[in-house]
Amino acid sequence: MPQNLLVAQSGGPTAVINSSLCGIVEEATQHGQVKGIYGAVNGILGVLHEDLVDLRQEDPSSIRSLRKTPSAALGSCRYKLSERDFNRLLDVLTAHGVGYFLCAGGNDSMDTAHKVYKMAAEKRLDLKVMGVPKTVDNDLPVTDHCPGYGSVARFNAIATRDSSLDTDAIYTSDTIKIIETMGRDTGWITASTSLAKETEDSGPHLIYLPERPFIEGKFLNDVKEVYDRLGRVVLAVCEGLKDENGRFVKASTKGIDTDKFGHAQLGGVGDYLVNLISEKLKIKARYDKAGTIQRVSMQCASQVDIDEAYRVGQVALLKALEGESDKMVTLIRKRSDPYVSDTGLVGLDKIALKTRSVPDEFINKDANFITKEFIDYATPIIGGPLPEYARLNKMRLERKLMPYT
Amino acid sequence: MPQNLLVAQSGGPTAVINSSLCGIVEEATQHGQVKGIYGAVNGILGVLHEDLVDLRQEDPSSIRSLRKTPSAALGSCRYKLSERDFNRLLDVLTAHGVGYFLCAGGNDSMDTAHKVYKMAAEKRLDLKVMGVPKTVDNDLPVTDHCPGYGSVARFNAIATRDSSLDTDAIYTSDTIKIIETMGRDTGWITASTSLAKETEDSGPHLIYLPERPFIEGKFLNDVKEVYDRLGRVVLAVCEGLKDENGRFVKASTKGIDTDKFGHAQLGGVGDYLVNLISEKLKIKARYDKAGTIQRVSMQCASQVDIDEAYRVGQVALLKALEGESDKMVTLIRKRSDPYVSDTGLVGLDKIALKTRSVPDEFINKDANFITKEFIDYATPIIGGPLPEYARLNKMRLERKLMPYT
Repeated sequence: MPQNLLVAQSGGPTAVINSSLCGIVEEATQHGQVKGIYGAVNGILGVLHEDLVDLRQEDPSSIRSLRKTPSAALGSCRYKLSERDFNRLLDVLTAHGVGYFLCAGGNDSMDTAHKVYKMAAEKRLDLKVMGVPKTVDNDLPVTDHCPGYGSVARFNAIATRDSSLDTDAIYTSDTIKIIETMGRDTGWITASTSLAKETEDSGPHLIYLPERPFIEGKFLNDVKEVYDRLGRVVLAVCEGLKDENGRFVKASTKGIDTDKFGHAQLGGVGDYLVNLISEKLKIKARYDKAGTIQRVSMQCASQVDIDEAYRVGQVALLKALEGESDKMVTLIRKRSDPYVSDTGLVGLDKIALKTRSVPDEFINKDANFITKEFIDYATPIIGGPLPEYARLNKMRLERKLMPYT
Repeated sequence: MPQNLLVAQSGGPTAVINSSLCGIVEEATQHGQVKGIYGAVNGILGVLHEDLVDLRQEDPSSIRSLRKTPSAALGSCRYKLSERDFNRLLDVLTAHGVGYFLCAGGNDSMDTAHKVYKMAAEKRLDLKVMGVPKTVDNDLPVTDHCPGYGSVARFNAIATRDSSLDTDAIYTSDTIKIIETMGRDTGWITASTSLAKETEDSGPHLIYLPERPFIEGKFLNDVKEVYDRLGRVVLAVCEGLKDENGRFVKASTKGIDTDKFGHAQLGGVGDYLVNLISEKLKIKARYDKAGTIQRVSMQCASQVDIDEAYRVGQVALLKALEGESDKMVTLIRKRSDPYVSDTGLVGLDKIALKTRSVPDEFINKDANFITKEFIDYATPIIGGPLPEYARLNKMRLERKLMPYT
């Protein structure tokens, strides 16, 4: 008997979470098994408050253009469900005849989805629950990478290259440039700035991930060494950098800045390091912190990412229709060059609340850059080479005068 | 008699200063009057140190692709010339048979160019000096706008729309978003974030320019008012905001952070306001500060800007060949819709060291947003509408349960 489908978008927005929504909805319209196609407004909060929309009423061209629309079109949330909330949730799903519940999100969302599945099973409800991976942080286990990451990585590769060119051009004035990227617990996003590097001497010159403790003295030595050699430094740091005691280098300690999952509000490492460098090395520095702009930039999105996000949505729906439940769709890398990927499935409990850090083999021994292994890993998923820029040969004219001193 | 041409790029990089270089070089190759086509490495510093390159040795395809290459391909600098430097400068120009000296830059650079002209005239040297306008700050007088501005404005329009969508989507968690833009003395760049606004309720909701004093109490009231009404606020601020006493709201006071022209290093207003809002209003906030990324983003460059930058370079060369000197090329708006512009000339002394602020008619009475007049002014130069995004109708399903409390 045909049942209704409910889709929810969860956690931080990305450039491609709407592409997953598009994949789900376009696939759903092809199957008689699916009656109503519903969306939850602001994720699980929309389910709790019965704030649901009818996606069959949308113009197919609007649905299609979700592929090139960043952020979360249905609205998202960060909300930790209470025991009582789960009961309400099942009441709403039952009241609206939902047989397929698809949730796009990260490890918090997969935990929620898993609990919904368990509770529905206890109550013997016929509910298929499927997870659609989504997180710019790229920190979900099992899957080769997460939709959303390829695009934030492409943004950071392009922005870091541009910002490095800016520093190169005017290095007689602004000598140290700090790029602060997102990344709460893992350095995947920060690592992607390495994809900007084109030559031995071009930026970024140093990269610091939260997988390694941030040691002030070592950092200052690293910076000084590059500065003495090149006269300028472009370095990338993660907003989630921690010191040797596991404390954030810079985070707000106010209760107000902690979200529903107890995560502290980060951001500000760049500003902190500008002051540190100014004070200790007496060198002028400035920082760029694209902040949330980096995770929703459709201008710099990866086509591979857009396509894969669509596919994981599509597959999640198809698998639910085949009777799968309590699973998340994964991406499996079949070949790197030319890049080919496939999808797989994994139990939601294998993802829920788990975090995958950047592995040791992707971080250099000095803990201040990444390895070639990371470049090989990340290059295919940012969707082709960066835009080509002119590079002048700069054939010097012969000097005719004495040096100017 | 054919003479040599020397081009210098000066001040902060932009997305389109290389397009001006392209216009100059491509035009110069068409004229027998021009013998050598030289570039100064790192602007005026390259002239002083006789670090010059032969641009006729570059592949024409490299020159062509300067049109889509951000930052300053020849290198730039911020350097204030001493009396002694001017003599050296003329020695170098003379030694290399330079008859045409073209300088792309802002008001500091036009001052330098004007002084070079005056000194050359005193010494009766046959030197044509022409200025090519370039500054993301858009603060040069006389010209309708400056090449570089259209692109930074387009970047900020796109980034602010993306960032606003991000806040809209997840406003149950991140409720106040601050966009910090560049802009030392004027609010032109900050004002461009207004081009992101699509509906009455979409961001940005508030915009603060340095043309008006920043008054803490009024700011907090403004923020609170929007927050109470919409449950979220997206606001844009200029890094150069000043208080009622004309002091920067946030700037480094260290000598090391002051450049050769005595300008203090700015940046950090976003961080400052996040703390202020958190402390005084107890509302969670975060900030995006694209920093130098905004001025060199070719992905978000304005085609109108790229074309106009090319044209002002081309015209500067042509006018120099016609015998003009001590002038800067200006842009004149002939029609807004469809947009048509022409070029004009102005004496370098009318530009040197002068700053054009955002005029009163572009700023609203409450000093917390811009007017329709600004939108009309800025829209044509960002090069067409922003990329189209999907907008769902979100037809609500009928509720079947009691409200959840």
